[in-house]
Amino acid sequence: MRIVWSIGDPHGIGPEIILKSFLTFGSATSSFLVAGSYKVLEYYRKALDLPIKLKVVNSAEEMMPARCGILPILSVAEPDNILPGTLSAQAGELAIASITAGAELCRKGICDALVTAPIHKEALALAGCKEHGHTGLLGTLFGVPSPTMMFFDQLSELRVALATIHEPLEKVPQLIRTMNLDIFLTNLAQSLKIDFDLQAPRIAVLGLNPHASDGGVMGSEEREIIRPCIERLSSTLRVEGPFPADGFFGSGMYRNYDMVVAMYHDQGLLPFKVLAFDTGVNVTLGLPIVRTSPDHGTGFNIAGKGKASPRSFREATLLALTIAQNRLKQ
Amino acid sequence: MRIVWSIGDPHGIGPEIILKSFLTFGSATSSFLVAGSYKVLEYYRKALDLPIKLKVVNSAEEMMPARCGILPILSVAEPDNILPGTLSAQAGELAIASITAGAELCRKGICDALVTAPIHKEALALAGCKEHGHTGLLGTLFGVPSPTMMFFDQLSELRVALATIHEPLEKVPQLIRTMNLDIFLTNLAQSLKIDFDLQAPRIAVLGLNPHASDGGVMGSEEREIIRPCIERLSSTLRVEGPFPADGFFGSGMYRNYDMVVAMYHDQGLLPFKVLAFDTGVNVTLGLPIVRTSPDHGTGFNIAGKGKASPRSFREATLLALTIAQNRLKQ
Repeated sequence: MRIVWSIGDPHGIGPEIILKSFLTFGSATSSFLVAGSYKVLEYYRKALDLPIKLKVVNSAEEMMPARCGILPILSVAEPDNILPGTLSAQAGELAIASITAGAELCRKGICDALVTAPIHKEALALAGCKEHGHTGLLGTLFGVPSPTMMFFDQLSELRVALATIHEPLEKVPQLIRTMNLDIFLTNLAQSLKIDFDLQAPRIAVLGLNPHASDGGVMGSEEREIIRPCIERLSSTLRVEGPFPADGFFGSGMYRNYDMVVAMYHDQGLLPFKVLAFDTGVNVTLGLPIVRTSPDHGTGFNIAGKGKASPRSFREATLLALTIAQNRLKQ
Repeated sequence: MRIVWSIGDPHGIGPEIILKSFLTFGSATSSFLVAGSYKVLEYYRKALDLPIKLKVVNSAEEMMPARCGILPILSVAEPDNILPGTLSAQAGELAIASITAGAELCRKGICDALVTAPIHKEALALAGCKEHGHTGLLGTLFGVPSPTMMFFDQLSELRVALATIHEPLEKVPQLIRTMNLDIFLTNLAQSLKIDFDLQAPRIAVLGLNPHASDGGVMGSEEREIIRPCIERLSSTLRVEGPFPADGFFGSGMYRNYDMVVAMYHDQGLLPFKVLAFDTGVNVTLGLPIVRTSPDHGTGFNIAGKGKASPRSFREATLLALTIAQNRLKQ
């Protein structure tokens, strides 16, 4: 397998967790490549005194197994200076160029999966990018209007998908009413089958309202939208709900399902981040390429200090390898 | 201290957790009284073969220390029959009469705190009650328009208060815009001072939107409502935020605060129930009386089977004793 790592914001912890992760893959037969900047990686390698050889390559064909101990870098841009913990347009530009290059390598089949280090929304904005994050950026690159954002934790085997993502809370109920939840859930089941090798995945759907509206006492989306959708699909998919979100997680019911569908960002991410600690991974479903990332941000406050844990980035890389292998089985 | 226990829905696990909790207070100098039904308690005592003597009393003055081994019952109604796990109007009526009697005993100063066993919303409705739960019922009884619902977990020392409670999600943003958040937070700090003996409580406020709107990218309530309120109060209270909810809990930041204010039900209850397991307690703040309850429901599916854990009800009773003692210090 050939993995391409995008470098993320060069002023965040991305380069550090890439380097530290590479060290943990010392005996791997898989190959890794950073789409990014030699100058940036060498800066952090030196600052953190990490025993890694970096090598600039002209094409991904020069990738070699990680056990060779050399990390190849495809230079997509070289910034003028490196200032850990600061926002800059040039940093945003490098982050975008790195993602674009990585996605392109996967699209062409030169690499098997893209694992993205964290980017900073404000740096993207300074670079003139209108997207808020990877999911939107990659959706635009591949012409997929709404890729699904999913989170996975290997330790607890918890999977959470979001029906709506980075939306103001006030827009969520209307979005749930107007989105095609049938297609969303059908595609989700298909992704679980292909990417996670789950032939008949058990999917749990959370309610939108507190107590899943308690029979309509608090809100009507469960009765009007979510329950009818689940009933329509239940002859072809193993989908159940809508469940009251707090009790569902509090009682441990989530352990009975392969996937939990949250109606909005915090409903899914709150329990996920509490349960997954630093082993959570973000996966984009519905793209033609395999893409994962750690579930944390750029960590500007600790950038360049050697304090960043590569745990989630390593998990993201391992999951990308698994998904890429599962896709080959198809 | 004199605690009155309301019996909850007689067809749920309320009577069982009352009896089991009483057994754990075998050496207590405090006194306990059930406002409820002898017939109901005797039914479950017999079914579960619990070594407790029950005694019908005519007034709370006949209460005696728990170490005497006798549980006094003030009979407020005696149902025709007892059918564990079923909804009935009569069960709802008994539950309401029990809460009313218990609240009255506390109002008169005959008891020091009310601990309520779980009630069933639909049984309340069958009994003609318009309120959805204890918080609303007690608010009406005491003429307090919106008591604050708060959750406490002794083990993790986590406290969570809800700015809005049982509301459809679509109403939440508007409620946050129109409620008086200044008064809400000021009263909360006052309750923490009086009830929890925290002289300068540290309060964290969560954002309403994902990532607390990320500087206004997703929603405007943080910029327009929440942040200005925190700034106004920060000269007199130790209040901080708004914090992105998922990262706040995921990173363990909640451990730095005495109280976390969630903007809506699931935002507070999702992390609370995951972190508190079966030791969470519900507290109503802003009432003239002390009131706590377990953070679980009636458990109709296990009612009468001896399977109910008294853990949360016991914790609720212990917390009621602590709050009652703290109020005496004032």
